[in-house]
Parts: sequence; structure tokens; C-alpha cells
Amino acid sequence: MKELTVFFVSDHTGVTAAAVGKSLLSQFRGLEYKTLTIPFIDTPDKAHALVSRIRESPRAMVISTITDQLIRTELKQCDIPVFDVFEAFSEPMSAFLGVAPAATAGQTHGMSNSYDTRMDAVNFALAVDDGLNPERLGEADLILVGVSRAGKTPVSLYLALQYGRKAANYPLTPDDLGAPTLPEVLLAHKAKLRGLTLAPERLAQIRNERLPGSHYSSLENCRNEIRAAEKMLTASGVPVIESTRKSVEEIAALIVHGS
Amino acid sequence: MKELTVFFVSDHTGVTAAAVGKSLLSQFRGLEYKTLTIPFIDTPDKAHALVSRIRESPRAMVISTITDQLIRTELKQCDIPVFDVFEAFSEPMSAFLGVAPAATAGQTHGMSNSYDTRMDAVNFALAVDDGLNPERLGEADLILVGVSRAGKTPVSLYLALQYGRKAANYPLTPDDLGAPTLPEVLLAHKAKLRGLTLAPERLAQIRNERLPGSHYSSLENCRNEIRAAEKMLTASGVPVIESTRKSVEEIAALIVHGS
Repeated sequence: MKELTVFFVSDHTGVTAAAVGKSLLSQFRGLEYKTLTIPFIDTPDKAHALVSRIRESPRAMVISTITDQLIRTELKQCDIPVFDVFEAFSEPMSAFLGVAPAATAGQTHGMSNSYDTRMDAVNFALAVDDGLNPERLGEADLILVGVSRAGKTPVSLYLALQYGRKAANYPLTPDDLGAPTLPEVLLAHKAKLRGLTLAPERLAQIRNERLPGSHYSSLENCRNEIRAAEKMLTASGVPVIESTRKSVEEIAALIVHGS
Repeated sequence: MKELTVFFVSDHTGVTAAAVGKSLLSQFRGLEYKTLTIPFIDTPDKAHALVSRIRESPRAMVISTITDQLIRTELKQCDIPVFDVFEAFSEPMSAFLGVAPAATAGQTHGMSNSYDTRMDAVNFALAVDDGLNPERLGEADLILVGVSRAGKTPVSLYLALQYGRKAANYPLTPDDLGAPTLPEVLLAHKAKLRGLTLAPERLAQIRNERLPGSHYSSLENCRNEIRAAEKMLTASGVPVIESTRKSVEEIAALIVHGS
């Protein structure tokens, strides 16, 4: 069979088209293909030029998010299947809503919340990363708590960039873990706390990449730290997320949607 | 008219369903509605429970990404329009590809690249943020260069989280800007450099939020810094992106796709 190329085409960044495309393609097990993301196809001329490029592929398919019908029409000149989200849904949606669609290529789609909210949240996450500036914890929407290397930093950055949430993160150190309760500075913001935990084996693996063969990285120490952290968090009624097999996006979605 | 609620429903994080949904809804100007993102609907039972919840809305519509047909069927019991990406495309795509779809709810879709690649990239971006650890610039896939507050940090974090790219960022200080060429430490990695610039008015606004009324934030100083930075970057043949009206996602897409 001739090699298949799947083009993810968008009038904006291509992030949504690629996400939809990868998700659709993941249904077809054993299928071999390469993918190409083509963003910013926001004029018929650009679509026209892209058609010439697509025609060079021996076998191709397009998955796209193109708002403007004229640009979609141009793209469909390539005589290969074009699966477009707007083409599929705009008309039936318009019929249900009783409102005509207005096409404007290149509209922002993808991330939620306004630019400034998200940038403020990123700056906040960096300012309070890893227990820095604890006096600013009051400004946080959420405070992620867990042992060192439990994945708090990437989750707090993703919460900021994707959801515009101000997420602080606070590492439970061996000193904290030896105390009878969570640190005072955290208990003052109890409703905002979210615990992150993971399997000791996975934690040991992550820590060994950083400090191989150390006490810090040993499975026994990881076990003890995690046991102490989980006990302390649940005793204070803090919801704890088990993250061993979860991606940053999944953990963030669980936190935001509170399940 | 009764208030419209649009449910973005997903068997995974809901990020793609919400992105598709917002993008589709943005076509309908003047339409009033509220939205609710419901992630992790990955069993028929969860879909069944959701249907009861949807029925409580006086007027509702669903935009969804549900891989499993049984779960979709359950969701459609709510007797309101369900616009599902898999429902629309799986069959025609399967007919073209000659491969039957295999439904597995909750598959990872959304971000590209493996988990470890992206986490390494986040840790790298943090380690070399704002000119820290310049001896590690050789490890970078890309080095963002621009004046203070030109937006380098959020773009480098987004490149790491979304694309798994190791992006360093290096601020051009007044000292650097007084020199005849870019700093040696940057010129050693010329092919990796990408300039970020913006309108002096916007830069002054951003800086004034941080240090109001300072020389650093004055429009005149912002003008001078930007002029010097742009001159230095273009003299070295570094591609420069004008970011005044662009979001972090747009800047990142331009960098990754090289347009």
C-alpha cells in the first residue's frame, strides 16, 4: 500500500486540529501513516498553495478545523477526503440554534481564559514554585502539596497555561514529614490544598534519574516519605490524587473539575 | 428564549472537546449561553448519570469527543442534539482507510509527544529560564531572545508542555544592547536563536504593571531597547517574531512550524 500522509490543517495554531486528528486516528490500530500539521491556512490563496503540496503525496487525507467556507472549498480541490469539523457541524448546529454562522478564519480557539489571566497565573506559578515566597500562598487558587518530585511543578504550570488558575506548589520536606501535622503555612489555606501522590516505585525511578544511588532516591525512603505524606494529607481532609499512571493533563483536569 | 447550556463532554480530559466546542460556538455571534466541561465520561453508566443532569437544563446542546459507540448511544438518550466528533468522522474515515475503528474510551488525545520528553523539556525550560545556566544552552532545541518582559518565559514553557521542545530563553539586558553584536554565548548557537519583539507601547504597559513610573518602564526606554534588540537580531540573521497581537499559542505555533 502507498504511504499515507495525514494533514492536520487549521486556520489558527493547528493544536485543536492535531488533537482531533490524533484522537480519530488512534482508533485505527495497526494503521501506518505520517502526520503533518499545517497551521495558519487563513486565506483561499494559502489553501490553494497547500493543495499543490498535498497532491505531491502518493496517498493523503486531511483532518481540519477551517471556519471559512471559501477556504474549505479551496482545500477540497485536492480530490482527497477532507474531514472538517466546521463542515460537519456548522449547518446542523445553526439549524438547532436558529442563528446563522459567521465565518472568520483564524479565530482563537484552544485554550480557555483571557491572555492576561493566564500570563498572571504563569508568573504566579513561577514565583511560588517549590515552596518559594510562602507569604503569597493567600493569592493562590490552589496549592499542590506532595513530596519532592511528585510532579507538582508541571501540573501547576499546566493549570496556569491551560486554565488560567493560580496554582502554587509546596514540597513536603523530610522535616515537614516528621511533624505531627501539615505545616501551619498550609493549614492556613486548607480549602485550597490538593495532594499529589504516586507509587513509591515510580518516585524512586524519577529520583534515581536525578540523584542515582542516594538515600533520597532509595525505594525504602520513597516508601516512607509517601506513607507519611499521604497520612498527613488525609488526616487534614485534603483530597489526594494518585498520579502514577496519569498525564499532566489528566491530573489538571481532575483538579479543575473536582472529581 | 430559555437559557442555553452547552455541555462539552469527553471520555478523557475534555480539553479537546472544549476547544472544538468553543471554536464552533464562536461562529454564532450574539448567541448567549453558558458552557460546562464534563471530562472522564468513559463508561455507559457515567453517560447515563450525565443524561439525568443534562435533562435538568431548560435548553441544552452537547459537543463531544466520545470514542466508544456504546457510551455515545447512552449519551444520546438525552433527546437533545449531540454533536460528536467520532460519530461524524469514524465511519467515513474507516471506509476510506479500509480499517475498522476500535473503540477505547479515555485514550490520550490532546498534547503531542511522550510524557517524559515533555517533562524533561519543562525542567529544562525552568533551569535555563531568564538566562540562568548559560552553559546548558547547547542542550536547547531553541533559544528565545528578546528584551525583558517580551514574553519569552510563557512561550518557552508552552513549547515544553505542548510540543516537548527544549526552549531556553535569554534576556537582552541594557549591557547586551550597548554591545556591537549579540553576546558570544548566543552567537555560539546561532541556528537555534529566535527573536521575540513587540510594540514599545505594549512593552511599556507590561513593564509599568511591574515597576510603575520607572526609567525601565518608560516608553522612551522601551523604544530604545526594542530598536537596539531588533537591529542586533536581524544583523545576525536571527528570525524575529512580532508578538504584540499574538497569543502564546500562536507564537509557539509560528516557532514550531517555522513560518
